[in-house]
Amino acid sequence: MSTIPAAPDDAVRACVDDGRAAFLDDLAEWLRIPSVSADPDRSADVRRSAEWLVAKLTATGFPVAEIWDTPGAPAVFADWPSGDPDAPTVLVYGHHDVQPADRADGWHSDPFVPEEREGRLYARGAADDKGQVLFHTLGVRAHLAATGRTSPAVNLKLIVEGEEESGSPHFSALLRERAERLACDAVLVSDTGMWSREVPTVCTGMRGLVDCQIDLYGPDQDIHSGSFGGAVPNPATEAARLAAGLHDEARRVTLPGFYDDVVELTPHERELFAELPFDEESWLRTAHSYAPLGEAGHTTLERIWARPTAEVNGISGGYQGPGGKTIVPASAQLKLSFRLVAGQDTEKVQQAVREWAAHSVPDGIRHEVTFWGATRPCLTPLGHPALRSVVRSMERAFGRKVRFTREGGSGPAADLQDVLGVPVLFLGVSVPSDGWHAPNEKVELDLLTKGVETAAYLWGDLAEHWRA
Amino acid sequence: MSTIPAAPDDAVRACVDDGRAAFLDDLAEWLRIPSVSADPDRSADVRRSAEWLVAKLTATGFPVAEIWDTPGAPAVFADWPSGDPDAPTVLVYGHHDVQPADRADGWHSDPFVPEEREGRLYARGAADDKGQVLFHTLGVRAHLAATGRTSPAVNLKLIVEGEEESGSPHFSALLRERAERLACDAVLVSDTGMWSREVPTVCTGMRGLVDCQIDLYGPDQDIHSGSFGGAVPNPATEAARLAAGLHDEARRVTLPGFYDDVVELTPHERELFAELPFDEESWLRTAHSYAPLGEAGHTTLERIWARPTAEVNGISGGYQGPGGKTIVPASAQLKLSFRLVAGQDTEKVQQAVREWAAHSVPDGIRHEVTFWGATRPCLTPLGHPALRSVVRSMERAFGRKVRFTREGGSGPAADLQDVLGVPVLFLGVSVPSDGWHAPNEKVELDLLTKGVETAAYLWGDLAEHWRA
Repeated sequence: MSTIPAAPDDAVRACVDDGRAAFLDDLAEWLRIPSVSADPDRSADVRRSAEWLVAKLTATGFPVAEIWDTPGAPAVFADWPSGDPDAPTVLVYGHHDVQPADRADGWHSDPFVPEEREGRLYARGAADDKGQVLFHTLGVRAHLAATGRTSPAVNLKLIVEGEEESGSPHFSALLRERAERLACDAVLVSDTGMWSREVPTVCTGMRGLVDCQIDLYGPDQDIHSGSFGGAVPNPATEAARLAAGLHDEARRVTLPGFYDDVVELTPHERELFAELPFDEESWLRTAHSYAPLGEAGHTTLERIWARPTAEVNGISGGYQGPGGKTIVPASAQLKLSFRLVAGQDTEKVQQAVREWAAHSVPDGIRHEVTFWGATRPCLTPLGHPALRSVVRSMERAFGRKVRFTREGGSGPAADLQDVLGVPVLFLGVSVPSDGWHAPNEKVELDLLTKGVETAAYLWGDLAEHWRA
Repeated sequence: MSTIPAAPDDAVRACVDDGRAAFLDDLAEWLRIPSVSADPDRSADVRRSAEWLVAKLTATGFPVAEIWDTPGAPAVFADWPSGDPDAPTVLVYGHHDVQPADRADGWHSDPFVPEEREGRLYARGAADDKGQVLFHTLGVRAHLAATGRTSPAVNLKLIVEGEEESGSPHFSALLRERAERLACDAVLVSDTGMWSREVPTVCTGMRGLVDCQIDLYGPDQDIHSGSFGGAVPNPATEAARLAAGLHDEARRVTLPGFYDDVVELTPHERELFAELPFDEESWLRTAHSYAPLGEAGHTTLERIWARPTAEVNGISGGYQGPGGKTIVPASAQLKLSFRLVAGQDTEKVQQAVREWAAHSVPDGIRHEVTFWGATRPCLTPLGHPALRSVVRSMERAFGRKVRFTREGGSGPAADLQDVLGVPVLFLGVSVPSDGWHAPNEKVELDLLTKGVETAAYLWGDLAEHWRA
């Protein structure tokens, strides 16, 4: 990869500066739509968000911009042909749905009333993922302005789904159904972050996800713990035993066969990770946490990027009010998520969860396992030429050397790779402190502008170097 | 013990029959007062319940009936001297507070609007403990009517506390402070049950109780499980590990030292337990449960009566709403209770819980242990002469041989025994299906009448045989 970043383009810079205020107004307008895909009461808002995006892409110049319905929330598709018969086709991926957010969870302002404070825009979805989808509108305008073109140097397609935060349950089917219109030479996922504002990076892989709920039923009603406790199974105890039994003392996941297919890190990859300026103290601050803890034998970066994990997202059962209540509760509930890495198969993991739960729950406890969705892991080939274009474009925008990371989160990148049969690249300008899925999610406005610039450089670079 | 029950007394029966309707009206009136001691919003109702009882005891004939304030909920004290200088003094113990109850938990009628259906009275507190306190009002009237006395054959005292369902936090101090006025020769605890309507029994011991809440704090806010999961401690996982770690695979409690001081059952006591007509299928139905599960090497009766246990009363942490949310939660909470048996010390167990929690929780998780109260275990000497009086009186009322049980639940019996330095006896006519602490708590009205009759015989029998 290049070690000296290429110089920025004045025409791109000027166009980005001119369009910035209108772009931010657009983003704020979109963020006001609470497109929470996990909440059935918000389904009309998710549709409104899709309609808003179609209108915005049409206004940007995309000759094709339309809603694609699914059995769940709608996706948005757009297409802007280059006109050049040799131009490669790039499909940008993002999502317009957002995580749930409740002001009472600790937000300093309404999560769905964007507020700009000290160069940051605070709102649910500001970074994940509306900001990083929308920067392509100004990006492509700057690309055209700087090159004098009336259509992009690449055939530019966008697919922006509406169920990413719910595990993309219908996305794979949509991809298969619409594969012809989605046909492309590469996918650019615009839904990740970078190392820090000082160390721009390109992500080369995402973890997969299997998440589920396990409901446990014991007595038909809450019963007296003095009269019956200690002699019948307690579903809260069994929920705890399931959750606790997910890890051994070395904090390795105990699910049978969980590590069997894991593609282990090479020594070179471990070195690349180790070269990053990782400071555990400041990382912990970003994590709002007070100590590292994870799988023995691995660094924190390896744990979050390249190791599969199991996490308890929620647990509940029995009395939750003030004081004590001496009962054996009637039921309990566990919400679990598993992050997967290259080599692991989501269906195999789901089957392992089913068998493990059935094997672990004692007689007298009825249980049900419900899966919310499954996302496959994904890994980009480090040597792919299109990756060079992404790195060069970022280096021009940021004026710094670009390094490599992975993303611990999950997206449907693997489905795009598998169904469309093309490499998947990542472009993201969010930073770890942006608070994805947390209260007070924000995006840093100067970094968002660098994202616009990177997108503006990328299409020309790809068209020039793709088949060189 | 006698094997042929003594004949009933016609005068007692007639008085009980005459007074039954008014007695049930009284009980229904008292049950309408929602004296939930665990709920701070109900403190006025708990006081109203105490005031109601004072008025009722005064109307019954007790020359002394008064409210005793505590730093928590008020208790009620009453005293009716015999007039006979040789008469023994008996202190009846009960409680006027009740467990929380919410109609939404599965009640078929309002828990605080008593409803009579098929010979049963449904209401929170019908059996635990208002019905079993109140039967002494008609009991003592029947005793006087049958014997022609104007005061009881024993010096009769009552102490009815208002915080039993909250672990009696101030009862021990109250006993010490008022020990002179409470002075007696024996305590009769009127807050237990019997084997079944066909097998009347006398309880000879109650388990103790230590209950607590453990709050666990991890990240300062919910964080993204993809970005941070697997590399920082998760308080929901740690709550589960604590709860799950309370038992080993043999379902023995793992708390260090927990069994050290336990008074083990003698072979004779195990035989007495084994002689009871225990049917596991029907017991499971009473427990609303589907399989037995408990400490290896012990029968179900041993597990609930004579073995110490640990129970998860409640567990919570993280996302509880519909669908999934891929977070590491900021906090989690455990509500635990430990039942103790003779020999175990509540303070030692509390200290063991504190040390176990501190030892078990990893770096990066802050925890707090809050104890709700502590009740000591209690065991009555099987050969005590006063026990013979209780057994004889029950046999007269029920016309059947009376057997021995223990009570798995907890009460302040041990404090009464220790502070007042006297033996503690138990008289209860509730049956296991009465649903203590559960929705649709009820009392069987014919058994409640047998309780009245037993109380009517008891004072004469005790006066006659006490020092014989």
